[in-house]
Amino acid sequence: MQHGILLVIIIAFVFLPLHAQHNEEYLQIGEQLTHLGLVEEGTYEILTQLLSVGPRFSGSPGKAAAVELTYQMFKDIGLDRVWFEPVTVPRWVRSEVEEAKIVGSRRVGDVPLSVAALGGSIATPTEGLTAPVVEVHSFEELQKLGDSVNGKIVFFNRPMDRRLVNTFAAYSGAVNQRSRGAIEAGKLGAKAVLVRSMTLRIDDYPHTGAMHYQDDVPKIPTASISTKGAEYLSEVLKFENDVHVFLRFTPEMRDSVQTYNVIGEITGSHYPEEIVLIGGHLDAWDLTPGAHDDGAGCAQVIRGLKLLKELDVKPKRTIRGVLFANEEFGISGGIAYAFSENRSNENHIIAIESDRGGFLPLGFTVDNTDEVVEHFQKYKYLFEPLGMYQIIQGFGGVDIIPLREQGTIAMGLLPDSQRYFDFHHSAKDTLEAVHPRELELGTIAMALFAYVLAEDGLPAELAGEMVDDLE
Amino acid sequence: MQHGILLVIIIAFVFLPLHAQHNEEYLQIGEQLTHLGLVEEGTYEILTQLLSVGPRFSGSPGKAAAVELTYQMFKDIGLDRVWFEPVTVPRWVRSEVEEAKIVGSRRVGDVPLSVAALGGSIATPTEGLTAPVVEVHSFEELQKLGDSVNGKIVFFNRPMDRRLVNTFAAYSGAVNQRSRGAIEAGKLGAKAVLVRSMTLRIDDYPHTGAMHYQDDVPKIPTASISTKGAEYLSEVLKFENDVHVFLRFTPEMRDSVQTYNVIGEITGSHYPEEIVLIGGHLDAWDLTPGAHDDGAGCAQVIRGLKLLKELDVKPKRTIRGVLFANEEFGISGGIAYAFSENRSNENHIIAIESDRGGFLPLGFTVDNTDEVVEHFQKYKYLFEPLGMYQIIQGFGGVDIIPLREQGTIAMGLLPDSQRYFDFHHSAKDTLEAVHPRELELGTIAMALFAYVLAEDGLPAELAGEMVDDLE
Repeated sequence: MQHGILLVIIIAFVFLPLHAQHNEEYLQIGEQLTHLGLVEEGTYEILTQLLSVGPRFSGSPGKAAAVELTYQMFKDIGLDRVWFEPVTVPRWVRSEVEEAKIVGSRRVGDVPLSVAALGGSIATPTEGLTAPVVEVHSFEELQKLGDSVNGKIVFFNRPMDRRLVNTFAAYSGAVNQRSRGAIEAGKLGAKAVLVRSMTLRIDDYPHTGAMHYQDDVPKIPTASISTKGAEYLSEVLKFENDVHVFLRFTPEMRDSVQTYNVIGEITGSHYPEEIVLIGGHLDAWDLTPGAHDDGAGCAQVIRGLKLLKELDVKPKRTIRGVLFANEEFGISGGIAYAFSENRSNENHIIAIESDRGGFLPLGFTVDNTDEVVEHFQKYKYLFEPLGMYQIIQGFGGVDIIPLREQGTIAMGLLPDSQRYFDFHHSAKDTLEAVHPRELELGTIAMALFAYVLAEDGLPAELAGEMVDDLE
Repeated sequence: MQHGILLVIIIAFVFLPLHAQHNEEYLQIGEQLTHLGLVEEGTYEILTQLLSVGPRFSGSPGKAAAVELTYQMFKDIGLDRVWFEPVTVPRWVRSEVEEAKIVGSRRVGDVPLSVAALGGSIATPTEGLTAPVVEVHSFEELQKLGDSVNGKIVFFNRPMDRRLVNTFAAYSGAVNQRSRGAIEAGKLGAKAVLVRSMTLRIDDYPHTGAMHYQDDVPKIPTASISTKGAEYLSEVLKFENDVHVFLRFTPEMRDSVQTYNVIGEITGSHYPEEIVLIGGHLDAWDLTPGAHDDGAGCAQVIRGLKLLKELDVKPKRTIRGVLFANEEFGISGGIAYAFSENRSNENHIIAIESDRGGFLPLGFTVDNTDEVVEHFQKYKYLFEPLGMYQIIQGFGGVDIIPLREQGTIAMGLLPDSQRYFDFHHSAKDTLEAVHPRELELGTIAMALFAYVLAEDGLPAELAGEMVDDLE
């Protein structure tokens, strides 16, 4: 009998935590958000308006218009507080003409290639440059070639690994070619760099993105080439080892520009200084409408706050939406936010970013210790009605890295990744690539989690821990 | 100490089953299938070829060509056995011209509406018919109108419920208007029926589908109307209660046609008579390429067997792919298969159908008792690397209903449902609506589960149970 009792206790211990904490009020809020959200599909409407201002690259007129528009949207929701905070951003401007072609090939003659300067690249000479091309797939391969790449165009052509189910892992495995290619090739005296676009599709759209220089290394012009162009160029190089390519693109770096983080909140009724932040970034690359990256995230933040206002919830802690000014070209929006003197009396307990596209949400990532991840997994039951089953350890978002370094628990909305890089940083990232219901489900999930966390806060043992020891 | 031991035993009992059965070989097969599948994206290539034969409605030339093509595909894979089995299917042929318009409205005059006859509908008179329209949203509402609908066109305009996360549930809640609308309206002497298309989008594509008559009820012409047309017509009816619509469509029912289920298998090494079936249906509605419904399922079956052959697996039990001849217009393919004398020495232990579109796979449904569902949930660990977290109770597939009634455990591949009804049974269901990676992940999941189940079979206590007592 004693054993029997023990058995009951142990079974209760093992199973009860899974169910005992199901909060009926939260489930009801979830259902109300779901019904309201899906009937209206309002996130898509907000995104449509946001995209109507044109490209939103940092420092551009479109970006300034997006600041005005979203500020007004926050105002129209009737939030408790809506404001701007200044951010200084670099201003890099792509040239109108960007040109590349294989020239004088014995087999194929002159063949145009689709390219786009990478963000931050210096210009080629005004009249362009022509040089022989050498194809490499890794920095190791480049090192082995040594000085023989001097005066040449280094062509980084390692594809994203198609075998990986998670396309972000495939991106991580390839993107150093884009971010550091100019540095590694520059060290060896290369004349320019071409980088295969970061996408799993074979198409003729160049996908741009940030690239970096290093102070002690000569700066060289760097562009992305469409995957179709990359495959073609690689094929030509198989049969002809002295292939020349002509490159001409003349972007320029202008004076920095002041822009703004756009902020709005439902102020907490009990602990207004404790903040659950939901965020996205308002900027996008210059050659794309940026519908998924990250128009979707911004629209979800605005719409999420609107849905919560419509339900007239009064959360104990503050739910704050932040549309960061500049993620793509430096993290100046996130840094300005985290280090603003306005933060001095605030305690950001949790920040959730949506910056993986407006696709079907599958769950959330938590960028913290196992213990913290397990704490958040207790909320899984709230998301199963939305078809979301994953609360897993993983990266939160770029804009909230500075907050994370100050002790905030960083989380990310986790949507399906299969289609994201088809569009990412290219002209293909249009409104038509976004599905209204998929987008709305992400809004609903983020609004629900923000509300519940603003009610519950964090257990004392998890709050305010520094997580510098994480990788 | 005794308690301590007991605790260990109980904890082992509670937790071990979750991990102890992780079979490393199966995980490796899963990884191999994933790598092979995602690198080649071969399912999309098969689907492309399948769609090249044109529309595949039961009894049509395109369907006959699809039988030839897929038979050859099975042959080319080098399966152990490939064959046809005859199926007789009805042959209903849509008229080239299908016309509808609001006529003589006081406010809007004549306005064309996009319609398509529902599958099986009789024709309007050759010269068309004109009658006043009465809008209803349910059979209850229709009953209340009683004889007043005599001589009128009954317009069923209850939308799919947008609030539901699962769009199949929304479809189930609306589709009786399409399937039984003609019967209910016919009983009251209506002249014709218009049914709002079964989609959550507002667009101008009519979505067709099967409708039924009842022997003792007058047959009346029945068509679907695009959601845009339905909204417009409803709006006009708000201001004008005597709106007439002209309808003209003249489909005809011709003589039945003999076609075939296409079948290929990897024969089991130990228990060849025990069969794990994977299936889809080769037919599609006449006005659509049928890329998702169900070109995707057929391509996944063919590709799944091809991947397994490439891995050179020798499953203990037979893995059989069946492309059913006719799902959309009766279930004659599934019935012919289940009742064929070829089945007499065979034991179909499990049948898995893919007929919910080629979208991101989220898991599997099992149409059986809690006990059986729990058994299959032990395999969840195999699908988590594919991002699939759901093995749940739910409908398997239409084609395998007859097998299920004979005791086979019916399962379904469960993809994301958000986009499915955007395309379903309409001209929008094209190759472009399918994503190569999403489609391939479904293939991989189905092939993996088929292989593992063909190795493991069923525990004696679950095998061969009749499940007639299920709802």
